[in-house]
Amino acid sequence: MLEIKRLSLDEARILLEGAEKKSGEMGIPMCTAVADESGHLIAFTRMDGAKVSSISIAMDKAFTAACAQRQTKDYNEIAVPGKPTFGIHVTNQGRFSIIAGGIPIKTAKKIVGSIGVSGGTADEDHQVALAAIEYFRNKTKLPD
Amino acid sequence: MLEIKRLSLDEARILLEGAEKKSGEMGIPMCTAVADESGHLIAFTRMDGAKVSSISIAMDKAFTAACAQRQTKDYNEIAVPGKPTFGIHVTNQGRFSIIAGGIPIKTAKKIVGSIGVSGGTADEDHQVALAAIEYFRNKTKLPD
Amino acid sequence: MLEIKRLSLDEARILLEGAEKKSGEMGIPMCTAVADESGHLIAFTRMDGAKVSSISIAMDKAFTAACAQRQTKDYNEIAVPGKPTFGIHVTNQGRFSIIAGGIPIKTAKKIVGSIGVSGGTADEDHQVALAAIEYFRNKTKLPD
Amino acid sequence: MLEIKRLSLDEARILLEGAEKKSGEMGIPMCTAVADESGHLIAFTRMDGAKVSSISIAMDKAFTAACAQRQTKDYNEIAVPGKPTFGIHVTNQGRFSIIAGGIPIKTAKKIVGSIGVSGGTADEDHQVALAAIEYFRNKTKLPD
Repeated sequence: MLEIKRLSLDEARILLEGAEKKSGEMGIPMCTAVADESGHLIAFTRMDGAKVSSISIAMDKAFTAACAQRQTKDYNEIAVPGKPTFGIHVTNQGRFSIIAGGIPIKTAKKIVGSIGVSGGTADEDHQVALAAIEYFRNKTKLPD
Repeated sequence: MLEIKRLSLDEARILLEGAEKKSGEMGIPMCTAVADESGHLIAFTRMDGAKVSSISIAMDKAFTAACAQRQTKDYNEIAVPGKPTFGIHVTNQGRFSIIAGGIPIKTAKKIVGSIGVSGGTADEDHQVALAAIEYFRNKTKLPD
Repeated sequence: MLEIKRLSLDEARILLEGAEKKSGEMGIPMCTAVADESGHLIAFTRMDGAKVSSISIAMDKAFTAACAQRQTKDYNEIAVPGKPTFGIHVTNQGRFSIIAGGIPIKTAKKIVGSIGVSGGTADEDHQVALAAIEYFRNKTKLPD
Repeated sequence: MLEIKRLSLDEARILLEGAEKKSGEMGIPMCTAVADESGHLIAFTRMDGAKVSSISIAMDKAFTAACAQRQTKDYNEIAVPGKPTFGIHVTNQGRFSIIAGGIPIKTAKKIVGSIGVSGGTADEDHQVALAAIEYFRNKTKLPD
């Protein structure tokens, strides 16, 4: 039998809090999605003024990071024409995100969930996701 | 030019708080979605243990209540075979919910957003949505 | 070789005008779609305050009336459980509307386009569609 | 509570008028969609002879310009393989347009809606959208 560890809603909220804090400092309203280790959404917020098209992109990034067990940023580099992973962005009903901003959350080396951020440039989204995870580590003291 | 009022993220969070409080009292973990007056998601939470299939149902209920300007409970009665609205549940790419649990949020008679709850029976979902709106009224003192 | 007659954009606009006039008299903001004889949209308007969920429903009604060569009201009666047409509402990617409000436009007994109305009850939608066609006949003097 | 300004149907019609005028001068029949600030369609026309495949493309361009708060032309440059936004064109159920011709409409620096044009080359579509907005400014005297 497998034993799975999974983010709780309270832990997901810490990640949202961290993302909103960083977005606020950067002055860019963001959409942030937190998913469990199976890619299913736990919690989501759209900050006032954030792009409506980022709602599903943030969710897709969180889905991809959890389900593909990898940050979406990596796929941006390996899913271009001429590389063997080209085409992966249309799989999973178009939910497979290859844009930076989705990162798995690990505890003791195991994926327990993921975060997906959208609203700025791909690089800004990635920075917010990283900042949210750092905030989460500081608050929870969980080992990575 | 039309003038529209829309829930802020802080106001959406009060609705989630009210829904989670009521769900906790009932002992039923729920998914709750809050949308703006155009049906776009503002915030979402899935309580620990809540059904994964309720994630999109809660979102669909919020979408429908905002966009059809009516509680989803009403459609459950008028969209049955033999009634003229039968068939509406497959419209809008299947996002049109005819199951109780979606209610528009009004301020001064205008729809400013909506809530959609899923996780229990249709009746339990509706009760949680109503309780969340009552909690919201008490906290914000906004007129209905 | 087939010879097809098809509504022009100017003629489609007369239908929208007639629909908006009737909706205005009834005090119910409506979405109205006019399609060509192949079911492809020619023109569309959403009146201020009309339901967002009615956008695609109006288009679906126009699509169905043109493509199924029949008013959608008829399907509401024959597509119920126990009748042989039950299930048709999920065909055509869910665009097959069985709710009253879609009517083919005929000239000299041939379908040249269609109208689809959504925003009120199914019966109100149907009334508006009928009124729009009557308005169109009066303006254009085209034979039915 | 957020305060939003949104194009009315009468204002949307001015944009269609401007687009049709410019398309007529260019001799290219176009599809034009006008959406509200949330990306929901307000009005649409397909000029006689315009491409049927442009119906949904025009709507997608309007959706994207409103929801991503940016002209679609910009995405054409930043969403190519090797750039970090590559892959965005398959998000939002494939409705995220990265082809020129979609532009947000602003009033006093705030997005109040958008226009999407399709029927010619991407550059021609963009020109028509720009001309429609200029026509709108001249008619309404609203500040940009």
